[in-house]
Amino acid sequence: MNNVTTQRVQAALAALETIDRPEIWITLRGAEELLTEAAAIDAAAAGGTNLPLAGLLLAVKNNVDVAAIPTTAGCPGFAYLPERDAEAVARLRAAGALVLGVTNLDQFATGLVGTRSPHGAVRDSRRPDHISGGSSSGSAVAVALGLVDIAIGTDTAGSGRVPAGLQGIVGIKPTLHVVSTEGVVPACRSWDAVTIFARHLSTAELAMGVMAGGARAWPADIRLAAPEKPRIAYPATLPALPEAWAAEFHRHVGRLKASGVDAQPIEFDAFLDAARLLYDGGLVAERYAAVGDFIETADGGAQTQAGVDPTVGGIIRAAGKVPAHGYLADTAKLEALKQEAMARVEGFDALLIPTTPFHPTLAEVAADPVGVNSLMGTYTNFCNLFDLCAVAVPAGEVDGAQFGLTVVGRTFHDAVAADIARLLEVTPDSPALFAEGAAQEAPHAGDRPSSSSPWPVAAGATAVPLVVVGAHRKGQPLAPQLEELGAAWDGPVRTAARYRMVSLDTVPPKPGVYRSDDDGAELVGERWLVSEAGLGSFLAALPEPMLLGSIELADGSRAVGFACDAVAASRGEDITSYGDWLAAKDDQGQSKSLWQNLGDAALAGFSRGGHA
Amino acid sequence: MNNVTTQRVQAALAALETIDRPEIWITLRGAEELLTEAAAIDAAAAGGTNLPLAGLLLAVKNNVDVAAIPTTAGCPGFAYLPERDAEAVARLRAAGALVLGVTNLDQFATGLVGTRSPHGAVRDSRRPDHISGGSSSGSAVAVALGLVDIAIGTDTAGSGRVPAGLQGIVGIKPTLHVVSTEGVVPACRSWDAVTIFARHLSTAELAMGVMAGGARAWPADIRLAAPEKPRIAYPATLPALPEAWAAEFHRHVGRLKASGVDAQPIEFDAFLDAARLLYDGGLVAERYAAVGDFIETADGGAQTQAGVDPTVGGIIRAAGKVPAHGYLADTAKLEALKQEAMARVEGFDALLIPTTPFHPTLAEVAADPVGVNSLMGTYTNFCNLFDLCAVAVPAGEVDGAQFGLTVVGRTFHDAVAADIARLLEVTPDSPALFAEGAAQEAPHAGDRPSSSSPWPVAAGATAVPLVVVGAHRKGQPLAPQLEELGAAWDGPVRTAARYRMVSLDTVPPKPGVYRSDDDGAELVGERWLVSEAGLGSFLAALPEPMLLGSIELADGSRAVGFACDAVAASRGEDITSYGDWLAAKDDQGQSKSLWQNLGDAALAGFSRGGHA
Repeated sequence: MNNVTTQRVQAALAALETIDRPEIWITLRGAEELLTEAAAIDAAAAGGTNLPLAGLLLAVKNNVDVAAIPTTAGCPGFAYLPERDAEAVARLRAAGALVLGVTNLDQFATGLVGTRSPHGAVRDSRRPDHISGGSSSGSAVAVALGLVDIAIGTDTAGSGRVPAGLQGIVGIKPTLHVVSTEGVVPACRSWDAVTIFARHLSTAELAMGVMAGGARAWPADIRLAAPEKPRIAYPATLPALPEAWAAEFHRHVGRLKASGVDAQPIEFDAFLDAARLLYDGGLVAERYAAVGDFIETADGGAQTQAGVDPTVGGIIRAAGKVPAHGYLADTAKLEALKQEAMARVEGFDALLIPTTPFHPTLAEVAADPVGVNSLMGTYTNFCNLFDLCAVAVPAGEVDGAQFGLTVVGRTFHDAVAADIARLLEVTPDSPALFAEGAAQEAPHAGDRPSSSSPWPVAAGATAVPLVVVGAHRKGQPLAPQLEELGAAWDGPVRTAARYRMVSLDTVPPKPGVYRSDDDGAELVGERWLVSEAGLGSFLAALPEPMLLGSIELADGSRAVGFACDAVAASRGEDITSYGDWLAAKDDQGQSKSLWQNLGDAALAGFSRGGHA
Repeated sequence: MNNVTTQRVQAALAALETIDRPEIWITLRGAEELLTEAAAIDAAAAGGTNLPLAGLLLAVKNNVDVAAIPTTAGCPGFAYLPERDAEAVARLRAAGALVLGVTNLDQFATGLVGTRSPHGAVRDSRRPDHISGGSSSGSAVAVALGLVDIAIGTDTAGSGRVPAGLQGIVGIKPTLHVVSTEGVVPACRSWDAVTIFARHLSTAELAMGVMAGGARAWPADIRLAAPEKPRIAYPATLPALPEAWAAEFHRHVGRLKASGVDAQPIEFDAFLDAARLLYDGGLVAERYAAVGDFIETADGGAQTQAGVDPTVGGIIRAAGKVPAHGYLADTAKLEALKQEAMARVEGFDALLIPTTPFHPTLAEVAADPVGVNSLMGTYTNFCNLFDLCAVAVPAGEVDGAQFGLTVVGRTFHDAVAADIARLLEVTPDSPALFAEGAAQEAPHAGDRPSSSSPWPVAAGATAVPLVVVGAHRKGQPLAPQLEELGAAWDGPVRTAARYRMVSLDTVPPKPGVYRSDDDGAELVGERWLVSEAGLGSFLAALPEPMLLGSIELADGSRAVGFACDAVAASRGEDITSYGDWLAAKDDQGQSKSLWQNLGDAALAGFSRGGHA
């Protein structure tokens, strides 16, 4: 019997003995309980239950409910005992993930440093005199140290990205509300997102596909992939970055360009202005709306007893004094800034930025807790305010620190952002894509692990399989039509042996397919995944003589596939025996006459079956 | 030369002489200016310029900018002179509408009564001791009296519907922000909508198609029509309605049911609770954010001079005292109420309600200006707060008052709401659909005037024409598949004479069409309009042997149309000579053997054109 979960728990328990990082955890589950649950998961998996996350250990930021473990949000006086898991936790557990414990955080998720907690400052995984980053501090360090495989964070202003950047791991901050916030202590209700950490992007995407869905609906025209050669914007200037960090960022931009990506600098002020609104304006009132009542109750002498962090308490109490019209004036400013910012990235597939500007020490934060914290959010604050999605990936080291890059995508462009992040990810056991001389080996955007579909599809976005055999195959002349619709390439397929194929004298040349049950052949093709609206748009633009309908594949499944109409089928040169349009095209390209021998002169009698 | 606009202006000028309602207008344009502009419009139309609104006079509520006419929002001290038209106005004028003048309103659009204005209370069009309703008071009465054909209103809590109901005209309150609010004085920025009034729904829809678009994007899966037999929810109890009004409402519900519509009562509390939040809670802070600075400046002695209405000034000043966390707590309550309300209407196509509960006199409002005003909003307040759309239509009289019905639709379901409102509209010169005994003549939802497409399509929503010749025609067994996708029936068409048709032994029976340029015939069909996502979803579910692709119509245009695959074409009985599948089906239904003679035995040689 496979006991992968049990082994994983045993390894984690052993690691916990040797790694002296008690500040990561607010509650660690007991060994007996963990091993019992691990055995149950392994047994269920062995029994055939579909548990795609079996064997993965999960840490949960302690502002997200885990049944029967106190939710504290980093404040002992705030603690309550939830009866059931938050929906995000429940989904991961139902898929086989095992909760190792719940993690420390900047109190009430108010901070980006990881030091604002009565449970102690969470230290960097490699250099304990440096900060972990926050507010999802414990979750990020637990992943970085290998104690767990995935961890839940939350992110309002960067709490799911800043610690990912500083800890050299992946953090996915999805489009707002595609992961349910049910069972999550709000920080700023309008801008809170539940996030995932993992050491590898593929693991993080697997978890996102399980955790998301069921909350905010995906649009019918969702983009499921980045184009083969994405267009990427990056800030023309990089405020707050030391010279070495800026140089490292530009080195990555240079490598992207060398691999054929079109990367262009843009004016970044509107993004930075939004970040400032969050700290200096009325938007912070959301924090008082979230937990102000508790802070007021715990005021004065009781506050110390309740464990309210003085910095956090000060921020939240001040937020209670904002008048509603001040808040509304700032949301109006925010909307204007969003319009300006979106105009800057018009025509680009994503925005590339450093995840953090630098990596401070614990002492630097202690000396200026508010100032350093604000700087940490320079490249993250605007994201949720503008309703964008982001993927933070590790990208090597600089000056002894982990260097992180973040790909920011438009609302619901989570699959686009993930594809582009895949170009950039550098992890210890991945090929060092951006090491000197390796630029040519950079994978193309869209090359997901073949076993997985884009995570929004796993999380409920509708995607229609579309099988193409000719000019829409990857690298062929019409593939850009599908890329423009945000279609995701999903690998090679073969049709059932029920189809014949002719060459059509269209521009560009295409194969024409028609069903012929008696003497059909298997044809080589490729499957794409396309949104319903993308498919409808594609059909609306499809020229005569091409048709679309249900096609049977060799494995018995079905997809939407191409056919040609009766006239075209009757005129075309039969190339069924090649089995693959590319082979026919290559072959016939060498004897041009076959292709030129088309047109009206070649019109042969297309029979209507003798009924007419 | 056609001088329809000039004649219309002359008629309006004559009517203005005889109708003593100066309180309608804040600024009326001069006769000379009007006649000059009218002549220019008529000349442009005669010269071939496409001016779909030529001949229509337009009134504009004076919180919406008209170039070179002061925008006062009903407060002389607030006045400014706009350099250019608001986008909504500019769009209507560019289509040939002529602005007669700008109209009185409840100051700062704060009120539903029409009495809160230093320019005087606007009186009911028929009974001058009654209120007009507001806040778009002057616009509604100008339309009701026939002084103009269309009028712009605004609507935050019912200002584009309450006066429509009381004045016996149509008011369309579209989904928020599909009409730009650029150039509009905000009332509550989050919930302001620009609306249209007209005496007929078809005129209002024509204007909406011109006025909307370019702001909030329509979704790719937009519904373009109500189903043939819609499901309609209505409140199980009708608070604030006198007995006669409630009886009138139920009489209309009864007639709908008699015509085959499925109408069901629902629990209405969540809708009413949202209405109360608007008046009794923190949401009103939006009004202070909009014009609070002006009110504060105009405070004290200066206020009287500035013409601030005492009721309006009191409301707005109080709104300045709301703390941000109070506003945010109420938006959270609002979201919970919306979820509850939307659960109540799950499965229904629309909600039917009375537009107003009763029609008060000027004296009744003067005696209790705030209380009566609140009651007026009972059935309108929730709508914008929940981001719904609504169409108010006249529906006869009760107790000497005009009786109005409102159809409320989901976000972006504007075409659905319009289709259902068409079932209910009663105007003096329309057939009295709901007069005794006339229930059977009620038109079906979806029967728009044949010359018009659903107004969201005119306003930029993407709709793909889909031509069907068989089982998807209206009334045929598969038409509900298209209705479920929100497709709009768009009338009969004929294909080009390039197609042949066979009968297919599918369940249900269908025709199979294929291109045959040499000996094709024109085939009778129908065109539907379907969203891109609807078309993609339809294609994804299409079974073998059906195909979809470009089809040429008799007028030379193209649409997406059906074909069948080669095997089906070869097996089917040729029925091209009928020219119409319904005729073939009727004929062949009488000699069953022809239809039974299908299947493998009938497999005739489908040639691949001799190339193989």
